[in-house]
Amino acid sequence: MAAIRIQPASEQDAPIVLEMIRALADYEKLTHIVVATEEKLRATLFGENPAADVLLAYQGEECVGFAVFFATYSTFLAQPGVYLEDIFVKPHARGQGAGLALLKRVAAIAHERDCGRVEWEVLDWNQPSIEFYKKLGATPVDGWTKYRLTGEALEQLAATPADSR
Amino acid sequence: MAAIRIQPASEQDAPIVLEMIRALADYEKLTHIVVATEEKLRATLFGENPAADVLLAYQGEECVGFAVFFATYSTFLAQPGVYLEDIFVKPHARGQGAGLALLKRVAAIAHERDCGRVEWEVLDWNQPSIEFYKKLGATPVDGWTKYRLTGEALEQLAATPADSR
Repeated sequence: MAAIRIQPASEQDAPIVLEMIRALADYEKLTHIVVATEEKLRATLFGENPAADVLLAYQGEECVGFAVFFATYSTFLAQPGVYLEDIFVKPHARGQGAGLALLKRVAAIAHERDCGRVEWEVLDWNQPSIEFYKKLGATPVDGWTKYRLTGEALEQLAATPADSR
Repeated sequence: MAAIRIQPASEQDAPIVLEMIRALADYEKLTHIVVATEEKLRATLFGENPAADVLLAYQGEECVGFAVFFATYSTFLAQPGVYLEDIFVKPHARGQGAGLALLKRVAAIAHERDCGRVEWEVLDWNQPSIEFYKKLGATPVDGWTKYRLTGEALEQLAATPADSR
């Protein structure tokens, strides 16, 4: 079993990153909402102001997984944190340490950047991942519901200034 | 009823921002987890690399509310978004448009920055806020649970490199 190697993605990795995003969406049964393209990934992740960090997990010559994360902020702590937008390992490569290696690298980067928390979301039916996260000491944040404003509702709210400024 | 005025917070507003954070924590019954100080807020929000944006809502000379938000990233959309960490209006000033004015300003900034979504979390018992958000067209994102790694569990994971790098 080949060792796992974690490395930051750069611009020439856009096709691999897109492949990983699509594989993750397929696993999550969410392929219908993916509109990412190589061009959009290059512009948003590998331009002047990258919107997130991307790590790739290699086993030998094959990219077997990836993680995408960005900085958050907690006012109660007055401290930044890390939000793990995606973490994914290809089904055939699971159980060989790639997921753990990705999470360890993210934790190390969070530590370097003086972040107090690493947070992420998991689909409620994804029991194998939930078990994995709990074993690492992660705890569910219960009692809150996320709300999202998007599409026309967001446009409409944005278009009607409410103050005199 | 005085008009609502929204303005970005700057360094000299750190005391007001801290007052707002504490008032919000009191409302959420979470005062015991607040460790923010003026000094920490200055360093993280008003230094060279601000970790979040802060808006203040004024009614006459009084600061009656605030909003704190930062950028997110969706790989499925290959597009940034906005996460609204805090939105709060002092109890005596509610129902006079400050919350709506804050949300409209956040939506307008999200639009300017080509963000596809504004997201935030609400405590499940906070029915008045939930009604307000739904009226604006926000929808709950169900089926996911947030997990958090913090404290010793995070330290431990960060301290044990798992790959040959």
